[in-house]
Amino acid sequence: MKPVIIGIAGGTASGKTTVAKRIYENASKHGRVNMIRLDDYYKRLDHLTLEERKKVNYDHPTSYDVELLVEHLRMLQNGMSINKPTYDFVIHNRSEISERIDAAPVIILEGIMTFAIPEINDMCDIKIYVDTADDIRFIRRLKRDITDRGRSVESVIDQYLTTVRPMHLLFVEPSKKYANIIIPEGGHNQTAIDLVSTKIIDLILKANEE
Amino acid sequence: MKPVIIGIAGGTASGKTTVAKRIYENASKHGRVNMIRLDDYYKRLDHLTLEERKKVNYDHPTSYDVELLVEHLRMLQNGMSINKPTYDFVIHNRSEISERIDAAPVIILEGIMTFAIPEINDMCDIKIYVDTADDIRFIRRLKRDITDRGRSVESVIDQYLTTVRPMHLLFVEPSKKYANIIIPEGGHNQTAIDLVSTKIIDLILKANEE
Repeated sequence: MKPVIIGIAGGTASGKTTVAKRIYENASKHGRVNMIRLDDYYKRLDHLTLEERKKVNYDHPTSYDVELLVEHLRMLQNGMSINKPTYDFVIHNRSEISERIDAAPVIILEGIMTFAIPEINDMCDIKIYVDTADDIRFIRRLKRDITDRGRSVESVIDQYLTTVRPMHLLFVEPSKKYANIIIPEGGHNQTAIDLVSTKIIDLILKANEE
Repeated sequence: MKPVIIGIAGGTASGKTTVAKRIYENASKHGRVNMIRLDDYYKRLDHLTLEERKKVNYDHPTSYDVELLVEHLRMLQNGMSINKPTYDFVIHNRSEISERIDAAPVIILEGIMTFAIPEINDMCDIKIYVDTADDIRFIRRLKRDITDRGRSVESVIDQYLTTVRPMHLLFVEPSKKYANIIIPEGGHNQTAIDLVSTKIIDLILKANEE
């Protein structure tokens, strides 16, 4: 059986990472699951200085190394192992460390642009969009950026209004139309997480039987 | 194990009945499932003439015999059988025929007002909202009412604008906020139907093991 790709998308701070993590934890008890984040496939920007890299609009589909991600997904689908790149948010560039991932019956693919990049969207078998109110997402991001990244309120608002929000409206929100199911409220929605986990566990158990 | 109540709501012609039917068909292969439609619990209107009954606004939560439905759901949850009323759309009144339903591990409860009536909403364990664009829903309803009910275009538009649409905006659409998962495009969404079916089959198989 070809591995099943579960795409999980949604806006910044929608709770999609929590949803992906919980589903991964539930499913991992029953068999091997691959977890891949689109953010690990940000393009190499070796040709730019750190200052230049800081100014890049990372909330745009062209920021991703789509070719490499598609190649890796195809390899996993064919039972091959990959060396997944990792991204270093401090230097705003691909890190030197890669992570070996062996094929598994289920691949969870998570990122805001999962359905906004046609080549990636086309490869997802089950498409889940985590939908959380825009104001709640902004509040979560504000708290996170202040606490975890030591950012000022002004800089968070400025980045949100100049890139995050326009790119969300242009790419992420319209990609909701590709979703097979929509999960409101993200990580707090235990019933939805349980529902998706049950499906994935079922896929894993069927693969184990083969 | 107490029976699990799966509520399925959504606007008129959203595809919620198809979703409910497909899930019922998939799950029934593995064990007994109760299917209950809110429409069967429209209030008795014996005190009104047919002409008066035709003028009643049936797209309002107060049109339902909530007390009886809650009593029946509680009985099923306690392993008791019920005599479910049936509704006759020709005479716009409860019919003389009732249907015996024995308790089962899963109850599918379907209707536009499932989450808009607080007593019913509170009883649902898993809440699914079938979300289809308003214009598509209107087009489906128009075709259905012309073909199946011999209605004129004018009468469909008139009813839609005077009761169906205002009641949808007042009660149905706001009840989406209670949903655990949202299924876009209703009956055409095979992936979502499969996902929910897998969960229900899992519940039935666990109940069978007891």
